[in-house]
Amino acid sequence: MRAVDIIQRKRDGFELDTEEIKFFISDYVAGKIPDYQVSAWAMAVFFRGMTARETGALTEAMLHSGKRISRGGAEARGIYIDKHSTGGVGDKTSLILAPLIAALGEQRWLSLSKPPAPVYVPMMSGRALGITGGTLDKLESIAGYSTALSEEAIFEGLEKNGYIMCGQTADIAPADRLLYSLRDVTATVESIPLITASILSKKAAEGAQFLVMDVKYGSGAFMKKQADAEALAKSLVDTGEVLGLKVSAILNSMDEPLGRAVGNWLEVEECLDFLENYKTAGTSSCIEPDLQKVTLDLAARMAVLAGLAADDAEGRELCEKCLETGAPFKKFLTNVALQGGNPDDMLARRQNKWRSPYKAELKAERAGQIVRIDAGKVGHASVALGVGRNRKEDSVCPTAGIIFHKKSGSSVQAGDTIMEVYGKDEACLQIALPELRDAIEYKAE
Amino acid sequence: MRAVDIIQRKRDGFELDTEEIKFFISDYVAGKIPDYQVSAWAMAVFFRGMTARETGALTEAMLHSGKRISRGGAEARGIYIDKHSTGGVGDKTSLILAPLIAALGEQRWLSLSKPPAPVYVPMMSGRALGITGGTLDKLESIAGYSTALSEEAIFEGLEKNGYIMCGQTADIAPADRLLYSLRDVTATVESIPLITASILSKKAAEGAQFLVMDVKYGSGAFMKKQADAEALAKSLVDTGEVLGLKVSAILNSMDEPLGRAVGNWLEVEECLDFLENYKTAGTSSCIEPDLQKVTLDLAARMAVLAGLAADDAEGRELCEKCLETGAPFKKFLTNVALQGGNPDDMLARRQNKWRSPYKAELKAERAGQIVRIDAGKVGHASVALGVGRNRKEDSVCPTAGIIFHKKSGSSVQAGDTIMEVYGKDEACLQIALPELRDAIEYKAE
Repeated sequence: MRAVDIIQRKRDGFELDTEEIKFFISDYVAGKIPDYQVSAWAMAVFFRGMTARETGALTEAMLHSGKRISRGGAEARGIYIDKHSTGGVGDKTSLILAPLIAALGEQRWLSLSKPPAPVYVPMMSGRALGITGGTLDKLESIAGYSTALSEEAIFEGLEKNGYIMCGQTADIAPADRLLYSLRDVTATVESIPLITASILSKKAAEGAQFLVMDVKYGSGAFMKKQADAEALAKSLVDTGEVLGLKVSAILNSMDEPLGRAVGNWLEVEECLDFLENYKTAGTSSCIEPDLQKVTLDLAARMAVLAGLAADDAEGRELCEKCLETGAPFKKFLTNVALQGGNPDDMLARRQNKWRSPYKAELKAERAGQIVRIDAGKVGHASVALGVGRNRKEDSVCPTAGIIFHKKSGSSVQAGDTIMEVYGKDEACLQIALPELRDAIEYKAE
Repeated sequence: MRAVDIIQRKRDGFELDTEEIKFFISDYVAGKIPDYQVSAWAMAVFFRGMTARETGALTEAMLHSGKRISRGGAEARGIYIDKHSTGGVGDKTSLILAPLIAALGEQRWLSLSKPPAPVYVPMMSGRALGITGGTLDKLESIAGYSTALSEEAIFEGLEKNGYIMCGQTADIAPADRLLYSLRDVTATVESIPLITASILSKKAAEGAQFLVMDVKYGSGAFMKKQADAEALAKSLVDTGEVLGLKVSAILNSMDEPLGRAVGNWLEVEECLDFLENYKTAGTSSCIEPDLQKVTLDLAARMAVLAGLAADDAEGRELCEKCLETGAPFKKFLTNVALQGGNPDDMLARRQNKWRSPYKAELKAERAGQIVRIDAGKVGHASVALGVGRNRKEDSVCPTAGIIFHKKSGSSVQAGDTIMEVYGKDEACLQIALPELRDAIEYKAE
């Protein structure tokens, strides 16, 4: 078997054999196939696509390029469920969903006459890149919080608190790490089979049996068009089936940032408020309806997949009740302690409104109605503020970001504050402000 | 400017700016853009193609990546004409055309009342790769013959004898050498704009002002389909125009090996016979009609381009007359002496039928008519015999090859010899024989 023949067959529209795909990936990881052959192949895949069988074979090959976390010993019995988002601006649902589903699992475990197995949420997340925020960066804005967990720490966390939040370990799907870095610099990221294999190889390797996918579309998403997001969702579900990983996908618009905050620590605060104050939902101004809807849709679907609810409607009801008990909030605090943070210190920082000193307020220039706050532009500005990174080696600023006082649909008078803006320094702030102003669309009332 | 953006723009079907192409090629040659970005870009070009302007810009950028041979001093005045073939099996026309056009130029220079400038044929050729034979390998089967000429040796040869035969020097279009090696292993060879830029950048760099292209199609050619060959011919002519290089293309079928021999020394012999015995053409069995036709078609077109003839018909007539004078044969001998060989030794080897000792005869198994001898299969078998090479680092055997006693259209009786076959060793011979047998198609008479 020769790499060049495999590239040519894909280029010419043939379906690759499973053996060809295995050979290509394993020899790539072994350093026997050079990057320049793999990037040409990835571009051919971009143009020719892959069948569900090929995508499944690619995912399997990438999964087997590394270690699969084994649910040994006490952990062997259990339902392992995760959620993954294709990335967005202000998307902090993971921080809420993990403690929520862990808490719900525990409650149902106690209450059901025939309970399913214990539910574990081993949530492996990524870092901010481009306009997409990163769950790990948000968590690491909590002083002391570590997202680099050993396999022992992962199982300890799951057993003690039902969930953990961590990064991908080095031995999880090394093929994906290699391939992703290469795709990033060769304009071959936007390929549905390659995206599918990247996501599912990692999720299968971390031991998830069930996965809820939040597939975003719109200006702040990776996929700009809903049809592309639908195609990706279908590919994820179909390929999951090939792997024995049950995937359920929900499509969500990402045309406007989700919730009230964009920024690492600012989003942690928003999650703490959401978890602590959920009982006042509908009356509290702490909880933005868009974040509430997306979070509960995903939570309900996770509850269904985990066998905790019969359907989405029941799942939603159970999740709301669970949030009102305050148990997920407590789980969050326990998780912070388990992963090296100090819950009291964290809550004190919230109390004291920990913020970057480089602050500006963006005010309405005239009266009208806000019809749109463009997520893509806000995401771009947030990178400039220091929330995200353009290159992997950039560092992020925990206290930079944006708090929205108004969202689309809001009526404003000239001079009303639309956003509080925090930059990692004054220069960043001055770069971001015009971009943020440009993100707002008004309509005269 | 970022390489990844250029790749993406090409991937998404945009026309690249001349500046983008310049940047991409010059930074590639400078080692600032890695192979893996260039191969992904080449694959995107394979799928998206290039406009004539883009192809021209690419060719210019590749041409300027290295040195352009300058026609300084006495050589400044002159018509520099070359011929290039996209490659075939048994295609030895270059060895005949160069001395023929040089001789014709000299004769016309003396005979015309208003002669054009002196005509020079600086023929830069390549080596065998895959089933395609290589002019340099053929010439190097002449003991002592060197195809690695300095710029001084090139101009000395041109001045003394009107033509030279050499390989591409290291400082000619280094971008092409880099890019071609990369395309070869990334399944991005078969792209019309990339082929066009590869050919024309070298031809322009070697100082050619006029170029006749022999574009082959068929089982033994790089282009299998005539339509693809037509598209390449059009691209070569159009791109030549952008560069100020006058290109004229002739399409030739390559379904059957050209002439009576395939093999390095065997083809030299065939050319010597052609040049020496042309006066008996039509009556001599030395000259195969297919080789005669293709050679004279190309020669006539070269004569027209060089201003030596008004049209193809006159060009053909002049070339035939020139061949009959024996002047091209003498030029060939002079060239051999100028480039390090010994003409007497060469002619003695011809006399003594210098051959590999590993010989077999392939005989007709039954009576019938030969309707086809597949050039692709013969080419493949010839590589096995040791005529060509699969990898650049392979060496070739000068005396391996095939002499056809019959070609398509011939009637045979059982036991008639169809081919004499020579291998570099016995094992090669045994591998090639069944392939050669399989290349012959009969029809019962």
